[in-house]
Amino acid sequence: MKSAEFDRLKKMVDHHILDYLPEIDPKSKTLRDAMSYSLTAGGKRLRPVLFLYAMEFCGAQSVESGLPFACAIEYIQTYSLIHDDLPAMDDDDLRRGRPTNHKVFGEAMAILAGDGLLSSAYEVMTKNMLHYLDNEEELKRRVRAAYAVSKGTGVRGMVAGQVADVENEDKLCSAEMLDYIHDNKTAAFIRACVLAGGYFAGGGRERMEALRSYGNDLGLAFQIMDDVQDVIGDAAKMGKSTGKDARDNKNTYPSIYGLEASKEKCLQLIKRARDIMARYYDEAEVFNDILDYVEESLG
Amino acid sequence: MKSAEFDRLKKMVDHHILDYLPEIDPKSKTLRDAMSYSLTAGGKRLRPVLFLYAMEFCGAQSVESGLPFACAIEYIQTYSLIHDDLPAMDDDDLRRGRPTNHKVFGEAMAILAGDGLLSSAYEVMTKNMLHYLDNEEELKRRVRAAYAVSKGTGVRGMVAGQVADVENEDKLCSAEMLDYIHDNKTAAFIRACVLAGGYFAGGGRERMEALRSYGNDLGLAFQIMDDVQDVIGDAAKMGKSTGKDARDNKNTYPSIYGLEASKEKCLQLIKRARDIMARYYDEAEVFNDILDYVEESLG
Repeated sequence: MKSAEFDRLKKMVDHHILDYLPEIDPKSKTLRDAMSYSLTAGGKRLRPVLFLYAMEFCGAQSVESGLPFACAIEYIQTYSLIHDDLPAMDDDDLRRGRPTNHKVFGEAMAILAGDGLLSSAYEVMTKNMLHYLDNEEELKRRVRAAYAVSKGTGVRGMVAGQVADVENEDKLCSAEMLDYIHDNKTAAFIRACVLAGGYFAGGGRERMEALRSYGNDLGLAFQIMDDVQDVIGDAAKMGKSTGKDARDNKNTYPSIYGLEASKEKCLQLIKRARDIMARYYDEAEVFNDILDYVEESLG
Repeated sequence: MKSAEFDRLKKMVDHHILDYLPEIDPKSKTLRDAMSYSLTAGGKRLRPVLFLYAMEFCGAQSVESGLPFACAIEYIQTYSLIHDDLPAMDDDDLRRGRPTNHKVFGEAMAILAGDGLLSSAYEVMTKNMLHYLDNEEELKRRVRAAYAVSKGTGVRGMVAGQVADVENEDKLCSAEMLDYIHDNKTAAFIRACVLAGGYFAGGGRERMEALRSYGNDLGLAFQIMDDVQDVIGDAAKMGKSTGKDARDNKNTYPSIYGLEASKEKCLQLIKRARDIMARYYDEAEVFNDILDYVEESLG
């Protein structure tokens, strides 16, 4: 991402990513090590940055207060990657250029590190709510944000998408099913991050609607880009295996629609998302920056 | 359990256990099937009943309003059992007299069913909070209850206990470590259920203190009973494998202290918990009923 503001928000997340983890007893040190290993493995921090920038977009003077929620979002993203990489799931050895969690800590610990990260996300969010018991408005905003995150990442969102993805391996699925998988596996969580940031900052109706539309389009564009990159990408540059979807007989946009049509669909979504944000000029700088990144990643 | 009130609360949980699950799209039907399979496999419903009865104990006129949280607690309990039974963890084939989740649905789906149940627990609790945005007192009670649940089941509770348990397999651990494992693996969640019920009903200081002490003692007594049963139990009657701890070289109370000393320790805890509740007479009927059950299960 090119904007200084994306970079600033990302660095905030990087800097504080371990700060909100509940204090783990030294007797369970390996748990903390396994969780930290994946949390500090790099990554774009796209989802927490989207959350924080949506706060700004909705008028937050400072995004510091949103950091616990932003980090909780990254805990959820990280848990989902650890579990996805497990031998019983995608069986990946490499993630962000490093051995996957179970390769380093073993399968049992990787399952528990994922469970621990997901649990910690909600422990952090509900603990943060506790600090605002006497500030009714701030409390309500946090409840709305936490619900949005839970909905986007649960059985009507990310987990549902994973299930459909796993179940449709090795068979050709319909375009409708592909849309369902993509919408849930990736778009639901991205949309949730954007909405949650808006709720957290008490965004008004118009801006919340803009966030909803933008989140939908970005989320789907992002997944298509990911599919395209798996076909055209350079493993060394991306820090993960490529060509894997085809080997696993995954249903992807390129496998169903072909590479060029997939790029075209992605560009359409990017254009629509840009149009939504056009009226906000430089108040949507980071949102546009992310769209540029997705477009450039199409090769 | 012998009391009619335990039975009444358990039946409420049994009856509504699927009612609060987020609506899952038919395209992810297997996810719903896998989650439902384990949720309806029977079980004592000890934790949700403790939650509901703690509400009554703290003066709730009706426990109906607590059902979404009680069911969320059972979702968390069920996710933890599904993940514990996985081949990479305890590798169990039998749970409550039926094949374990991964035996029926495969490992990938069992991991995702667990993730889905844990996610759903928080989706249910935060959604329930949303219904009380305009009732500040009820909202606060729910936030406190959700935090207690998250703390008891996360990396300072159940997950931490699991990690220490897994890490200490095949080696003799210290008495201090055994206490740590038991306190976290089982007691922390049981204590959290009791406290959460108290918070949910707006319990006063004195009753909350009684709940905390009772929850501590019951939680540890329950885990020791479980260890003892694994040594002396009848697999057919218990619906799960027995003698497994010894085969897996698990550290248990009987393996460290011997069977008789373990029973003695458990009886001491039961006595102390009874003493705490003695002053509440029949207002603590279900709490005492559960202690009787633990005592009788020692054989």
